[in-house]
Amino acid sequence: MNFLRVNMSSKKISVEEAGEKYRLLGNRGLIAQLAFDEIDPKCDPLGPNNKLIIATSPLDGFGITCTGRLSVGGKSPLTGGIKEANAGGVASTKLVHQGIKAIIVEGLPQSEEFFMLHIHKEGAQLIPAKAIAKKGTYSVAEKVYEEYGKDVGLITIGPAGENRLASAGIFVNDMDGDPSRPAARGGMGAVMGAKCLKAIVIENDGSFKPPVFDERAFNEARKAFAKGIMEEPAIKVYTEYGTMGMLMILNDLSGLPTLNFRKGMWEKAEEISGERFHDLILERGGEGKITHRCMPICVIQCSNVFPDKKGKKLIAPLEFECAGMLGSNLGIADLDQIARLTKMCNDIGVDGIEVGAALGVAADAGFFEFGDGKQAEELIGEIGEGTPLGRILGSGATVTGKVFGAMRVPAVKGQAMAAHEPRGIKGMSITYALSPMGADHTAAATYRAQIDHHKPEGQMEVSRNIQVLMAFYDNCCCMFVSRGLIKKPEIFVNLINAIYGTNYGTDYLIELGKEILKLERAFNLAAGVTQDYLPEFMKIEKLGPHGLTSDIPQSDYNRFWEEAFWGKFPELK
Amino acid sequence: MNFLRVNMSSKKISVEEAGEKYRLLGNRGLIAQLAFDEIDPKCDPLGPNNKLIIATSPLDGFGITCTGRLSVGGKSPLTGGIKEANAGGVASTKLVHQGIKAIIVEGLPQSEEFFMLHIHKEGAQLIPAKAIAKKGTYSVAEKVYEEYGKDVGLITIGPAGENRLASAGIFVNDMDGDPSRPAARGGMGAVMGAKCLKAIVIENDGSFKPPVFDERAFNEARKAFAKGIMEEPAIKVYTEYGTMGMLMILNDLSGLPTLNFRKGMWEKAEEISGERFHDLILERGGEGKITHRCMPICVIQCSNVFPDKKGKKLIAPLEFECAGMLGSNLGIADLDQIARLTKMCNDIGVDGIEVGAALGVAADAGFFEFGDGKQAEELIGEIGEGTPLGRILGSGATVTGKVFGAMRVPAVKGQAMAAHEPRGIKGMSITYALSPMGADHTAAATYRAQIDHHKPEGQMEVSRNIQVLMAFYDNCCCMFVSRGLIKKPEIFVNLINAIYGTNYGTDYLIELGKEILKLERAFNLAAGVTQDYLPEFMKIEKLGPHGLTSDIPQSDYNRFWEEAFWGKFPELK
Repeated sequence: MNFLRVNMSSKKISVEEAGEKYRLLGNRGLIAQLAFDEIDPKCDPLGPNNKLIIATSPLDGFGITCTGRLSVGGKSPLTGGIKEANAGGVASTKLVHQGIKAIIVEGLPQSEEFFMLHIHKEGAQLIPAKAIAKKGTYSVAEKVYEEYGKDVGLITIGPAGENRLASAGIFVNDMDGDPSRPAARGGMGAVMGAKCLKAIVIENDGSFKPPVFDERAFNEARKAFAKGIMEEPAIKVYTEYGTMGMLMILNDLSGLPTLNFRKGMWEKAEEISGERFHDLILERGGEGKITHRCMPICVIQCSNVFPDKKGKKLIAPLEFECAGMLGSNLGIADLDQIARLTKMCNDIGVDGIEVGAALGVAADAGFFEFGDGKQAEELIGEIGEGTPLGRILGSGATVTGKVFGAMRVPAVKGQAMAAHEPRGIKGMSITYALSPMGADHTAAATYRAQIDHHKPEGQMEVSRNIQVLMAFYDNCCCMFVSRGLIKKPEIFVNLINAIYGTNYGTDYLIELGKEILKLERAFNLAAGVTQDYLPEFMKIEKLGPHGLTSDIPQSDYNRFWEEAFWGKFPELK
Repeated sequence: MNFLRVNMSSKKISVEEAGEKYRLLGNRGLIAQLAFDEIDPKCDPLGPNNKLIIATSPLDGFGITCTGRLSVGGKSPLTGGIKEANAGGVASTKLVHQGIKAIIVEGLPQSEEFFMLHIHKEGAQLIPAKAIAKKGTYSVAEKVYEEYGKDVGLITIGPAGENRLASAGIFVNDMDGDPSRPAARGGMGAVMGAKCLKAIVIENDGSFKPPVFDERAFNEARKAFAKGIMEEPAIKVYTEYGTMGMLMILNDLSGLPTLNFRKGMWEKAEEISGERFHDLILERGGEGKITHRCMPICVIQCSNVFPDKKGKKLIAPLEFECAGMLGSNLGIADLDQIARLTKMCNDIGVDGIEVGAALGVAADAGFFEFGDGKQAEELIGEIGEGTPLGRILGSGATVTGKVFGAMRVPAVKGQAMAAHEPRGIKGMSITYALSPMGADHTAAATYRAQIDHHKPEGQMEVSRNIQVLMAFYDNCCCMFVSRGLIKKPEIFVNLINAIYGTNYGTDYLIELGKEILKLERAFNLAAGVTQDYLPEFMKIEKLGPHGLTSDIPQSDYNRFWEEAFWGKFPELK
């Protein structure tokens, strides 16, 4: 497997074999290791020495379910620290079939002309991207399909990325051609924009098949993998309700951010619940789908297609995070309105979570009226246009809070919290405060842990253990696999050993997860990203209706990175 | 001596004796110790648990020259770390004569009604500030003098502070009644604004005289102090040219920021030089003054009154820092225009350094044309009005850079560099990167050090030693005293020993300076403020005309806080 190195200063493209060191690393783990090896933690996120790393899974390309996630990462313009965000879609597997393990985009062009990277079986070229520059992601997709056909993998940014807004994401096309699978968090779209790379198009003509060490063991392990996932009853909720199924669960825990994190339980929650969403799709029929795959091979199928009243596709998918942050958090109880806002975010190319949080902060400052969906559309429109106000909002919740002198900013390390209220679900306090990723729910969502979520005790250990495991999962597959396989680590190691001829035991998961987090932590320490605590309003303000505060003792935060748990940390200066 | 504690939540005011621990601490040192003792480093700078500390010198009130500086500090909304900024003016000595060593403003009001704190010999009251709310600092002064007479001390914020903009300063009135002595840096005006305290008025009726331990020794030491300062030839430049005298010195060193830090030497520098400024004042006559005191007792008199073409006072004073950041840095070579911009900053209540840097960044992003003074006026006007664009600029250079996706942002820890280019004067790289104050030239201006300023070697030690000494000076007097007394520490200890009955040797200066810096560092570590490096563009981009880069080795930065030099650090969790 190769690294495709694309230098935007010189426009030179080179192919090199990924070294032995990187063989079992992929996605988040590969980004952590490459960032540690190649990126100066003190570099400017938008400067020539940051790199945009686009990484595939070491399990992708073998026909294994849930392994086609595409990761993007580097130094984040939002947090100033290391970042990895991932998305489904069809691009990852197509890259693998071109023999590409990761794309490393380097340098910085002198001019502001945007380019498109075209990858096919004969090689790769940078092509001027005039026809798609400044276009929304949906128009980009249309234009690209016109020229290259619908069978390509597409990785693109919207105008927000071109404008280098810190909430800009990178979007991947799904199996129906929608560029609506966002690797949204942390502003990696702005890094791609700074490098003047508008899109990457991967032809479907790749024929590389990564080798398998032991075919027979592999076939068994692969079957066991899919079966193991589907046997777990918890997975069924995802299949039927997708992530939207979480909405009422979180609401019941006081974990649903409402009106800029003023409440964790909303009287209107049912109007935007997974159940309501599910029924509405069935009721409206047409192009609607309650199950949908985000990647070619997926047994879970947590995605969806949400139709409008006439049955025409409005968005695919609507995920819980956007329903929370652009819905309850903004006092908007209308699923159609939320879907429209989410689609606008996708098209402009911004992270709906970050934008929802920024609008919530703007509401506190008097620039937005909670519940006013039309105004939310206008404001998101301004992000796309790049007006001063739009640029403020598109720079994320923390910058919005600074500019408006706001005191209630739900963010850590410059990144907004997702739709998991950390007072209602206290383990999230630890996740948000201490993940090297900033306030990112995917680092460790704790709401399903067997613990009293309203009590501070034990949350540090719960979050830390999940963070370690998630780092492992983020190295090679969709995070929801963890739901299915969390008690069956042997299924994972069997698969890896069969493919790579290794001889790992089940402790491999924990060991690799720890190594990844340690690399990330080392990067952040050298970058000076050490705001390891929640915003103070969450310690002071009681969350309605249960009067919950963020009351995990500081000593628990202080213990998180203790060497007794992690062992020695690598050092970066 | 007392602490006046003002709780803005309860509107309760209390007086308490400052403990023994604080006896010899004042200004910056007192703020460091009080912040360490009383402020949670993880608090919200604009929230109820931050405190605005207003501190006097332990040498003020005795009729000693250069000791009437007023410090303001707490947790900075600009850097997120500890902050102290100081100004001259008449307020400090009046506070001391009321028996007040420091004012500690706490809490946060429920309503947005602004108050004024009125201090007089019978006590202190909070009075609704309707008549001065939303007014510029010059109008505030007028209104206050109408009601209380011209003999009061005034500490006020402008609209920028009320709007909680992170570049808002706190302004003190001078001997002529102008509220133009800014404790500008670090956004403490926003903290005062968040606490809804518009102004503090101190009556001249205080009669407290701090006791002296040994009158005879004191009288001798006091005379030696003033004489010692004036004997130093370097001081004469300040007397005649004020800080403006630095402009050509820095320009010759490639140390004058020009066109958003693109050059360090400007072909138009002479048009705004101290010499030109000096001659213009003499030429125009009228109310102009080439020497002027910022405090009642000052032998240096580095301040000035700059008259317009008709001889009428345009601004008092115009300082080098604003001439650099609002002049050369913006390509503006017109002293009258620079004076008008500076006066606008004073009136709105923002830091001219931070605003100059923000406008420079905005120029790179296409929102400002270098050299266009009228446009600069319009943009600064927008800061006062609080438009979205004005709020971006008023939030400082770092936020402006984030919002516009800029890659050339001359700032560290969220605070803009002052008009000392750290590639032309390399010791400033260390000062900016490692001072707990963020990029603050007052932490250690190295341009007079006997070293080759264009070479990286030895700069760390030079800056560190000056930082230690400056922390001592900042504890008790104007930083320019250091120019006069740097080789005569015994004069200082004699004075302190005579007043306080202590028995310190000359190593006291270094010891105290170190203690202060260690407290500040400990605060920042607990606050997670650890961006201890310069923006990358300064490492990459060659500064014209000498092609200088920021090339001090990382190992020198890493050694700065070594325990071998500092001893053990106090710890804050």
